[in-house]
Amino acid sequence: MDLEISPLALPFPDMPPIEGVTLRVARAQYKKWDRCDLTYAKLAEGTALAGVFTKNVCCSTEVEMGREQAKRGKARALIVNAGNSNAFTGHRGREAVEQIMAQVAAHLGCDSEDVLVSSTGVIGVPLPKDKAQAGVAAALTADPCSWEDAANTIGTTDTFAKGATVSAMLGDTKVTLNGIIKGSGMIAPDMATMLGYIFTDAAVEPEFLQQCLSAANERTYSCITVDSDTSTSDTVLAFATGKAGNAPIASFDDPGADAFMAAMEDVCRQLAHLVVRDGEGAQKFISVSMQGAVSDDSARKIGHAIANSPLVKTAIAGGDANWGRVVMAVGKAGEPADRDRLSIAFGGIWAAKNGLPLSDYDETPVAKHLAGQEVNITVDIGLGQGQATVWTCDLTHGYISINADYRS
Amino acid sequence: MDLEISPLALPFPDMPPIEGVTLRVARAQYKKWDRCDLTYAKLAEGTALAGVFTKNVCCSTEVEMGREQAKRGKARALIVNAGNSNAFTGHRGREAVEQIMAQVAAHLGCDSEDVLVSSTGVIGVPLPKDKAQAGVAAALTADPCSWEDAANTIGTTDTFAKGATVSAMLGDTKVTLNGIIKGSGMIAPDMATMLGYIFTDAAVEPEFLQQCLSAANERTYSCITVDSDTSTSDTVLAFATGKAGNAPIASFDDPGADAFMAAMEDVCRQLAHLVVRDGEGAQKFISVSMQGAVSDDSARKIGHAIANSPLVKTAIAGGDANWGRVVMAVGKAGEPADRDRLSIAFGGIWAAKNGLPLSDYDETPVAKHLAGQEVNITVDIGLGQGQATVWTCDLTHGYISINADYRS
Repeated sequence: MDLEISPLALPFPDMPPIEGVTLRVARAQYKKWDRCDLTYAKLAEGTALAGVFTKNVCCSTEVEMGREQAKRGKARALIVNAGNSNAFTGHRGREAVEQIMAQVAAHLGCDSEDVLVSSTGVIGVPLPKDKAQAGVAAALTADPCSWEDAANTIGTTDTFAKGATVSAMLGDTKVTLNGIIKGSGMIAPDMATMLGYIFTDAAVEPEFLQQCLSAANERTYSCITVDSDTSTSDTVLAFATGKAGNAPIASFDDPGADAFMAAMEDVCRQLAHLVVRDGEGAQKFISVSMQGAVSDDSARKIGHAIANSPLVKTAIAGGDANWGRVVMAVGKAGEPADRDRLSIAFGGIWAAKNGLPLSDYDETPVAKHLAGQEVNITVDIGLGQGQATVWTCDLTHGYISINADYRS
Repeated sequence: MDLEISPLALPFPDMPPIEGVTLRVARAQYKKWDRCDLTYAKLAEGTALAGVFTKNVCCSTEVEMGREQAKRGKARALIVNAGNSNAFTGHRGREAVEQIMAQVAAHLGCDSEDVLVSSTGVIGVPLPKDKAQAGVAAALTADPCSWEDAANTIGTTDTFAKGATVSAMLGDTKVTLNGIIKGSGMIAPDMATMLGYIFTDAAVEPEFLQQCLSAANERTYSCITVDSDTSTSDTVLAFATGKAGNAPIASFDDPGADAFMAAMEDVCRQLAHLVVRDGEGAQKFISVSMQGAVSDDSARKIGHAIANSPLVKTAIAGGDANWGRVVMAVGKAGEPADRDRLSIAFGGIWAAKNGLPLSDYDETPVAKHLAGQEVNITVDIGLGQGQATVWTCDLTHGYISINADYRS
C-alpha cells in the first residue's frame, strides 16, 4: 500500500556527523521491496548504552534481550531489521537474533552482548536467517551513509524520514545529540512499532545516560499517543561515544549535566512529535495541556484519557470545539476531578469555566483555530498544581483505511 | 443528520403489558424535530426501584439525584427527556429536574423523590423549564402507548428501537421483565448516552432488586463497549411493581430468586447487545470470549483491552484475522499474561497456540467467518480459570463520519 506523505510532515534536518558513529545500510530483502531494509550503526569502543522499552507484557525477543543489554550499559553496534518484527516466533526467532549478534561481534572483535538488534515489521514469521546473514554481511562492508538514509531504512509504514539534532555546551566542550526514529500508527504491534535511536559524542556514564533517557521518556515518548495501542516491540536506545572529550558526566552534580539532560529531553521531544506527525491518517497535531490536577502524574493520566478518546479525536477531525467530550474524557480517567471546577479552552480561548459554558463564549475564533493544523486544548482541573502536556493527532477516515486494509 | 438503520438491527419484539406500568409519550420539542421526545412511565404504588449509574466522575445532575433515589428504593414515575442532556448546566439544570419531579408528584399525589428523571441529548444547555412543563403536562394526560413507542421516544441517535422481554416462573407465578434501552455510540457524553429501563410485575424487595441488577450489570452492560468512552449520564433503572402476586423475594434463599436473577441477566444481556448492534458505524458484532485468566475480573479487563483496541477493531472491519493485534492488546491490559502461553482463535479456529502461529493454520475458513456479521474471538491466557465475555463492534468509516460531523 502506497501512503501519501503526512500533511504534518517536517523536512529532514541538517544533521552533523557524530564522532564514533558510522552508519551503513543494506538490502536484506525481508520483504519484496525495492529499498534498503537493514541498518548498521558501528559505535566506537567505550560507547555507553541506555534504553527504554515497551511496557507491553507480550514483548518481543529483541526487547527482552535489549533490556538485559541496557543493564550492562555498553554497546559496539546496532542492527535494525525492517519488514519483519520477529515477534511471536519462539526459539527460532531468538536464534536469528543471536546469529546476527555473533556475526557482527566476529567482524568487530567484540562481545556479542555488545551488539543491539531491533526488528520491526510483520509478526509471527521468524526472521529468515539466510536473508539476515547476507544482509548483515553486505551492511558490514557497505559505504557509510547519511543520517537521512538510515532514518529511511529503519522505517516501514512511515511516510517521511524522521530526525532531530540538538547541541549543548558542557563547559567549553560542544556536544551533539542526533536522533532518528520510526513509527507512524502509535503504536501498532507490527509495522508501526516505534523504534528510536539517539547518538551523542558526549562522554556520559551509562547509569547517568539511563537516568537522562528515562526522565526524558516520561515527558516525551510517554506523553504521545496515536491510538492508545502499545506495541510489543517499542524501543528507544541512547548511545554515547564519549569522543567529544568532555569530562565524563556521572551525576547531576557534574558540570554540564543539566545542559545534557535538557538537550536529551529536547531531542526526545522533537522525535516524539515527529511520530505523532506521522500518525496514521493524521490531519491535525493536537497538544493537550493539563493544569490544576492533584499531581503531575494525575495530569498525565487525564491528558492521556483525553488524547485517547475516539470521541474527542473525531470532534477535532471535524473542527468541532466539543468541550462536552473533553469533560467526559476527564471524568472517565479515574483520577480526582470535579465537574464544577473544570475549565476548558481551545487555542487559548476558554469555552467553559468551573463546569459551565461561558455566556460570552465566541465560537468564531475557536472554529478558526480548529481549522488549522495545530490544535491546542487546555484543561484546568481546578484542584491542585499538577501539570503535564500530552500530544496526539486527530482520528480520521485515513486511520480506518490504513488499519482496516493493512494486511490485504 | 439522518442515519441509516444499522445493518445489525433486530426487529422490535412482541412485548406484553406489565401490570402496574402505564407508558405515555408527548412532544416537549426539546429540539426542532417532528417526533415525541418525552416519555412518562406511571408506576403502581409500592413499586420497588434499583439503579446502576455511570462511573464517570463528571456525571450529570440526574445521575447524582438518581443515585440517592435508588438508595430509597421506591418509585412512582419515570420521566425521560430526549434531545437535551441537561449536563454541565449547574443550578439551573437542577431546578429544571426538581420542577419536573414536583409537577409529576402533584399529579400523582406522591413524594417528589418518587419521580425519577433522565435526560439525554446536547450538553451545556439547561433543560428549558417551559418546554419541560408543557411536555410533562401533555404526557400526564396522553393516551397510553406501546413499548415500541416508548423505546422510540427515549432514543436520540439510535437507528432502531430496542426492547427485550423475558418471562420466568417464580413457583407457580409467571412474572415478566420488559426492558427498553437507548444508546448507540458507546458511550458518548451527549446524544448517545445509554439509558435503560427494566419493568417487571414481580414482587421483589428493593435491596434484592438492586443486588440482581448490580450483578447483571457486571456481566452485561459492563461487558459492552463501542469506543471505550463512557458517558456522564449512563443509567439503568429497574422497577418492580409487585402486581404478579408472588411472595416478595428478599434474598437468594427465597423460592424463585434464582429464576428471577437469571431472567434479569437475560433481559440485561439482550438489551446490552442491542446497544452494541447500534454502535456508531457498526458492521459486525464481535464477541470476545476470554478463558484461562488468573480471575474473572482479570479476564474482563483483558477482554476490554481487546474490545477497545482501535487496531483490533479496524482489523475486524477489514476482515483481517490479525492475531498479532490481539496479542498486543492482551499485553497492554496490565493484567497477568505470558506471551508464550497465549492462544487465539477466530470463529473457533485456533490461529496461534502458546504464543506461536499454528503451522497448519488455514486462513480460508477464518476469512469466511470474518466476512460474516457475527465475529467470535476466543483468547486463552493459559494461566488460570478466569473467564469473561465482552461484546463490541468493529471500527469503521461510519464511526468517523458520525462523530466528526455530529454537531455540524
